[in-house]
Amino acid sequence: MKRCVVLCAGAIGPGALARCAPAPDDLLIAADGGYLRARELGLVPDLILGDFDSAPAPDDPRVVRYPVRKDDTDSLLAVKEGLARGCGRFVLLGGLGGRLDHTLANLQLLLYLKDRGADGVLLDDRHTVRVLRDEAWTVERFAGYLSLFAMAGDCRVTLTGMEYPLEDHLLTGAYPLGVSNRVREARGTVTVRDGALLAVEYREFEDEREER
Amino acid sequence: MKRCVVLCAGAIGPGALARCAPAPDDLLIAADGGYLRARELGLVPDLILGDFDSAPAPDDPRVVRYPVRKDDTDSLLAVKEGLARGCGRFVLLGGLGGRLDHTLANLQLLLYLKDRGADGVLLDDRHTVRVLRDEAWTVERFAGYLSLFAMAGDCRVTLTGMEYPLEDHLLTGAYPLGVSNRVREARGTVTVRDGALLAVEYREFEDEREER
Repeated sequence: MKRCVVLCAGAIGPGALARCAPAPDDLLIAADGGYLRARELGLVPDLILGDFDSAPAPDDPRVVRYPVRKDDTDSLLAVKEGLARGCGRFVLLGGLGGRLDHTLANLQLLLYLKDRGADGVLLDDRHTVRVLRDEAWTVERFAGYLSLFAMAGDCRVTLTGMEYPLEDHLLTGAYPLGVSNRVREARGTVTVRDGALLAVEYREFEDEREER
Repeated sequence: MKRCVVLCAGAIGPGALARCAPAPDDLLIAADGGYLRARELGLVPDLILGDFDSAPAPDDPRVVRYPVRKDDTDSLLAVKEGLARGCGRFVLLGGLGGRLDHTLANLQLLLYLKDRGADGVLLDDRHTVRVLRDEAWTVERFAGYLSLFAMAGDCRVTLTGMEYPLEDHLLTGAYPLGVSNRVREARGTVTVRDGALLAVEYREFEDEREER
């Protein structure tokens, strides 16, 4: 399944880039100011989309310019384009941090993708964020926290191999019970039913790791 | 109705502080590392709560220490204490930015408060975040963006006095339609029914304002 890598306008650090490792057969889309990130990183996008209301549009034949007055965010335009070109896996870089509303919109995009049978992750140097819906996910142990949030309504969650296990627990959007868990075994499993879950991995850097 | 101001461990800038203006009759609670913020800002908390797993507990009679192994975040402990002491309005400072999971947990706290008949806002220098549920809210025009997100399920939204109006629109958590709106008239109204909405105000600083 072809992968789409979307470069958004936020910071894109070396850790995020290494975990994603853009490859020649990815569809690489720069969303608006994301083309500046591409340039900084020496990446050549296949397509540059956006309304260019905050960054000037580059003089480039790969630019597709949208009106400023539109319903979709630049990230959503990029994701729609990726879906239209047959991509089933999405990585969004530079889409976390900065304006909170942009971050929240990008989280909702993960659910938008899920609705269309595709999977997406948001990456920065610290975070990997994904949506799970009516499915089981296996996560290798890593140094850092795994936090889980009910998304777009309640869901039922079972956790194994974790510091705080759960058994078919009803997680709601009005009580952040799933914050700061850790994978304790070699791998943990997160099983979600009757709804969607936002899974946020937060990596600790070497010098921050607790002795355990 | 007594107000509770919670100081979390994140950055607390002068803009957020000025908009909140802690007063002597507020209940001022420092949540864990938030007591360091209080000290920096010259504020004297009534209570210092937390597990002190990341910041050492101060030697202070106002400290209430919780075990590291617990279900609630430090912010949630503070909010519960404020509710127990009769507060009906909450301001959380230092609760945005930093770890994404902490930010998301704090957003869910706003809904937790709403469920208990209380109102909360999260503030930083740029953002004011609130939850609306089955209610109408009037917002004065300001320089910046107002973004609206369905929270914990769908909701129906009517917007007047805005750049992008809506009429009883079904907003879902899988399509970020409400990003980057602006209040166009002297005041706008946001009316929410059949669910909860997250309203994110993002302030532009003087030198960023567009001419319109």
